[in-house]
Amino acid sequence: MSNWTIESTDFNAEKAADLGNQYFIGNGYLGVRGTLEEYGKNELTAINLAGIYDRHGTAWREPLNAPNALLTWVEINHKSYRLPTCTPCEHRQQLDFECALHSRKTVWETEYGTLGVTAQRFASMANPHLICMKYRISTDSCVDVILHTGIDCDIWDIHGPHYEKTEMGVNGETLTVLATAGETKAQVAVSELVLCDFHGNQSIHYEDKAILREIQFEADGKRSYTLYKFISIYTTHDGGNPLHDALVCSSLSAKTGYEKEKAVHIRRWSELWNATCVKIDGDDTAMQALNYSIYHLHCIVPRHAESMSIPARGLSGQMYKGAVFWDTEMFMLPFYLYTEPKAARLLLKYRIDTLPGARAKAKEYGYRGAFYAWESQEGGYDACSDYNVTDVFTQRPMKTYFRDKQVHISADIVYGIVQYLKVTGDMSLLDEGAAEVILECANFYRSMLVKRADSGCFEIHDVIGPDEYHERVNNNAYTNRMAKFVFHEAAKLIHKLFLGSSPLRIKLEEQFDLKGMLQKFEESEHRLYIPQPDHKTGIIEQFDGYYKLEDVSVDAVRGRLLDKREYWGGAYGVASHTQVIKQADIVAMLNLFSGEYNNRTLKNNWNFYEPRTEHGSSLSACMYAVLACRFGEPDLAYPFFMQSACVDLKGGGKQWAGLIYIGGTHPAACGGAWLTAIQGFAGLSVQSGVLKVQPRLPSKWKSMQFKIYFQGCIYSIEIKGKDYKISVENKKRGFPSRIIFF
Amino acid sequence: MSNWTIESTDFNAEKAADLGNQYFIGNGYLGVRGTLEEYGKNELTAINLAGIYDRHGTAWREPLNAPNALLTWVEINHKSYRLPTCTPCEHRQQLDFECALHSRKTVWETEYGTLGVTAQRFASMANPHLICMKYRISTDSCVDVILHTGIDCDIWDIHGPHYEKTEMGVNGETLTVLATAGETKAQVAVSELVLCDFHGNQSIHYEDKAILREIQFEADGKRSYTLYKFISIYTTHDGGNPLHDALVCSSLSAKTGYEKEKAVHIRRWSELWNATCVKIDGDDTAMQALNYSIYHLHCIVPRHAESMSIPARGLSGQMYKGAVFWDTEMFMLPFYLYTEPKAARLLLKYRIDTLPGARAKAKEYGYRGAFYAWESQEGGYDACSDYNVTDVFTQRPMKTYFRDKQVHISADIVYGIVQYLKVTGDMSLLDEGAAEVILECANFYRSMLVKRADSGCFEIHDVIGPDEYHERVNNNAYTNRMAKFVFHEAAKLIHKLFLGSSPLRIKLEEQFDLKGMLQKFEESEHRLYIPQPDHKTGIIEQFDGYYKLEDVSVDAVRGRLLDKREYWGGAYGVASHTQVIKQADIVAMLNLFSGEYNNRTLKNNWNFYEPRTEHGSSLSACMYAVLACRFGEPDLAYPFFMQSACVDLKGGGKQWAGLIYIGGTHPAACGGAWLTAIQGFAGLSVQSGVLKVQPRLPSKWKSMQFKIYFQGCIYSIEIKGKDYKISVENKKRGFPSRIIFF
Repeated sequence: MSNWTIESTDFNAEKAADLGNQYFIGNGYLGVRGTLEEYGKNELTAINLAGIYDRHGTAWREPLNAPNALLTWVEINHKSYRLPTCTPCEHRQQLDFECALHSRKTVWETEYGTLGVTAQRFASMANPHLICMKYRISTDSCVDVILHTGIDCDIWDIHGPHYEKTEMGVNGETLTVLATAGETKAQVAVSELVLCDFHGNQSIHYEDKAILREIQFEADGKRSYTLYKFISIYTTHDGGNPLHDALVCSSLSAKTGYEKEKAVHIRRWSELWNATCVKIDGDDTAMQALNYSIYHLHCIVPRHAESMSIPARGLSGQMYKGAVFWDTEMFMLPFYLYTEPKAARLLLKYRIDTLPGARAKAKEYGYRGAFYAWESQEGGYDACSDYNVTDVFTQRPMKTYFRDKQVHISADIVYGIVQYLKVTGDMSLLDEGAAEVILECANFYRSMLVKRADSGCFEIHDVIGPDEYHERVNNNAYTNRMAKFVFHEAAKLIHKLFLGSSPLRIKLEEQFDLKGMLQKFEESEHRLYIPQPDHKTGIIEQFDGYYKLEDVSVDAVRGRLLDKREYWGGAYGVASHTQVIKQADIVAMLNLFSGEYNNRTLKNNWNFYEPRTEHGSSLSACMYAVLACRFGEPDLAYPFFMQSACVDLKGGGKQWAGLIYIGGTHPAACGGAWLTAIQGFAGLSVQSGVLKVQPRLPSKWKSMQFKIYFQGCIYSIEIKGKDYKISVENKKRGFPSRIIFF
Repeated sequence: MSNWTIESTDFNAEKAADLGNQYFIGNGYLGVRGTLEEYGKNELTAINLAGIYDRHGTAWREPLNAPNALLTWVEINHKSYRLPTCTPCEHRQQLDFECALHSRKTVWETEYGTLGVTAQRFASMANPHLICMKYRISTDSCVDVILHTGIDCDIWDIHGPHYEKTEMGVNGETLTVLATAGETKAQVAVSELVLCDFHGNQSIHYEDKAILREIQFEADGKRSYTLYKFISIYTTHDGGNPLHDALVCSSLSAKTGYEKEKAVHIRRWSELWNATCVKIDGDDTAMQALNYSIYHLHCIVPRHAESMSIPARGLSGQMYKGAVFWDTEMFMLPFYLYTEPKAARLLLKYRIDTLPGARAKAKEYGYRGAFYAWESQEGGYDACSDYNVTDVFTQRPMKTYFRDKQVHISADIVYGIVQYLKVTGDMSLLDEGAAEVILECANFYRSMLVKRADSGCFEIHDVIGPDEYHERVNNNAYTNRMAKFVFHEAAKLIHKLFLGSSPLRIKLEEQFDLKGMLQKFEESEHRLYIPQPDHKTGIIEQFDGYYKLEDVSVDAVRGRLLDKREYWGGAYGVASHTQVIKQADIVAMLNLFSGEYNNRTLKNNWNFYEPRTEHGSSLSACMYAVLACRFGEPDLAYPFFMQSACVDLKGGGKQWAGLIYIGGTHPAACGGAWLTAIQGFAGLSVQSGVLKVQPRLPSKWKSMQFKIYFQGCIYSIEIKGKDYKISVENKKRGFPSRIIFF
């Protein structure tokens, strides 16, 4: 059986940042980096909050980290024992990702014998505002002990500090912090209540950036001493009085007790695993990596909200400005769609609710319709800077075009919505604003189309496709095909609306000239130029002129770097004027529209583009993995699948871009691993509204088992070699099944 | 009276490069840098040849420099006296630009008293293959003298060496070199014949890269000793046997004698001055600078050829690859047109003859018609590299877009042709290919036009305008307006053709669907979007989005340079994302189409753009000067006029770009100075086929006098304040007057 626990037993201070990601816990409302209880900002400790942002001065806007109420360390006879400075003789850090429990055990040799510390914590999956911790010490001699525990307000920020005011206080037995952000005036309240299984003298100390309690007692060298912390976090975004609500939560939770809260938490996780665990017989390593990826997807989806989405680095910190990218719709959404459609719904609701931001952005660039943010924050604000990279040679900001030219984002969102409609049959999303999103994205692409004076074709010029190393290209195949998809779906929507006179039709007709739009969208769909496979080689050119670029290996291009931190793309990057690409681009397009191409085309493009791909993005490998499955070569796919599934499990990816920390978890790769397993190896697809399975397991996989939500039912799927069995498990769960619309 | 001689009396070795330009002589077939007789490659000595190119390996192709037969120095009692190493006690270098005579005088103090050297040379304006030199020494004591004189084959090349074979020889009394270029196998023959007014013992010495004669004699300390050199240069491009022809020329010229050859040369110059001298009463400095500029224009026009054009640095060396830019049509052509239409004709014939190259370039970039070379060499080959600039921080070549995006070049050529037709009335140029050029340039722009899906307007995207600091912009006003001009002229041409059934019409109808083209060109002309003056401010936006760029001063932008050699433009240059522009762009457009705008618009745009202009190109100042005249402020124009007129006279401009020499003469600025004087201050224009004068002299100019060719007549124009007098001087000269066509 696969191992559901990961652990690290050799202590290495330099791995703190990496382990912070690997041992991450979270519940969608907050994420707690897998750092140790005594750690502070130097070790990149953070409790990251979902969907609440602030900007310090003119720096990049980023999500808030909460004051850290986990801070705890021990002092024996006036000497503190804290990692990383005080070397232990034994150390173990663990994550049980089945139960979502983080634990550590550390033993020090002291002058007075051994000192053992064990700690366990969880971010409650049953109560998003709650973090519980158990902290236990034991000594083998009689010593004076002081436990220091409280709330650390010296917060690790990438572009902070964010709090203009930090009010520390005590309310009865509970320590509190109410911190107010400088730009938005949003407030974050943190409370912590401590229970001990022993008697100690407590005193409260206010420090410059912390409020701490000291619990003094004499250890007898025989028993262990345990304290329990009940931490609660609320913000002004939750609608109530944050400080009051946090106090109530800490207090109630303490009354419930640590073990009971833990049991409720584990029960919730067990429900999640019941619905989403993927069992693999014959490959424990793959099964562990895949379910570990699924664990991360569970930790970061904001189930508490009605309309919120997932940042590119999940809740593992402020990296990439805590912004939402296309990663969510194209890489993570399928997992939620097929396992927990309510979660998928709230992710898409975020896009619906940020339509005004997308309209404003389109207008800013002289277009119509909806141009979604490349790096989306609250309200659809595009956090993407026009100068997103720093030149390592001159230290100057470099003009980048991610914000204004990566126009495929709007189509990616429409693609997500359409998948939602297909998989759930839940058309109410259209009534709630998804229809406007589809139409406005189509309007956007319509306004981008250009036609050469003597050509009948529309083209899309001056864009960046998924491969960001090539800027300002014309007719990127991915972008054009996705725009065509949007025109098609928008036209189909209008046709369906015209079949009746629904309230939705009436609402939309007040805003739009649907008839005129229909004509335009159909014309656009049919006349938009889509780069086609060469009739000899089957290769599709990534964009106009790609073949004219230098044909050189990825290694040769890497060899041209003068500084390993320098950007490969931009105007003069080492890759920019070569055929070397950052990540799957044509291959991503072929995955989405594989039905339109024969296997030879899929395979030839894979063979052509893979050696030209740096895989400089964690989004790349899974696309190659899925496509290899589609043309029937799962063993070719397998290493790319494992690369995706292991990205956070193994750690060690790119952690720094110059002086900026860009590490963190990689939920898109996690989603990509799931995609490969389910859509690749199991071959799950929806064709003409019917769920299909077409297994192509890697040779060492004997069998594979998982459950899938589709159109209101839960299906249990068991695959053995080429055989498979689908059984309907629950007809009532999820959304009601309806006539297939899309 | 103005001074027609410039001189330099303080010897400074470091000024050799600068003086090489300032004291330049030439006759259109060849240019001789103003270096001293004893100089070699270290001092950038060169005899540059017009229109004959070679490429060494993969380096940039550039024009050939001939072996230098001027090389001469003196040895006294076994010691050589040569600048720059042997410091003189007196030195003077002179250029009499009225007679186009270069001379120098140098005196050294030797152990044996003083040694004086004087030399004079000219590149014959009567015989383009001939350079004559007189070299005289005098001593005040009796000493042993050796004069070394011969042909230096150690040639200064920027991207050489070019000759794979250099055959040195002696033919009778004449030294010869026959050098064969590596790529093209073109041959350059140089011969030199020496006559002395004294008896000396001559011997010939072959060195590694020179053939030299030593003339030994004893100076008596009283008289002076003079040698005369008759140098001739022929190449395989001249159609005969270069070596034979050179020998004949040297020999005939020696028989004629130095003084007689000089008299013929001066007579030819005096004819040129009679036709082109501009007299200014009240401002000798300006008169000198302007006529010095005109001198340069005379020195470089290839009168010997039937179809050839002028490189951006004239014949002062291999800078800018010896390539022909838009400089010729837009800045130099007007001078030739209005003074020597035959010369203008041969410049335009070059464009006609390079139409196949322009067609091939259009095809290369996926366009139709004729896309002329940005840096045109033989046959219209575009010498412009895709990597035309080196990054000073990384030493890497930087991708540049001069070649593929600076599309206004084709329109500039059409503009030149149309001006020719207007000024000369000589429609035979149309029959000889100019009609095809006009039509094919219109076809080119037609194929560039794009239309947004829901717009009735055509636009031109992704270009570079005259301001090269802003790459890949949309709807550059200059480019769009010029394209509209081309459509207009092409349509007009077809309309005129349709009036009859000329052989030209028949010829063109064999190649083109004239009727279809007419419809397209008219549609294009009327629907092409031209950025308009803002109705409040009168300002025209240089391109889409220009106003959104940072509004910052030129000095502030300069202050951001980390390295003074770094390129201001490109993707990340200090100017690229600011409103700072390299040179006149909107202002250039307003000059060409000033009749379409009121004075307020002209002035407001001048006031808006001038403070934003770096004037980083020598083409910039004259455009501002002319426009200021057009809105009636000649005193505002004056300093810009002087900047243009003095660019070579004063020297000291940009000489090096990194390690590449980019100095040289600036004939476009010379042409621009003439433009300002004649079209600006004198206000000469052709309106509806009628020559008009509208004087607006700078306040210190009392009067101005010049001659103008127009429609077969020579007009003498005399301006005094606001009054002017036009008299017809010669009805027969030039081309026959004909009915005005354009």
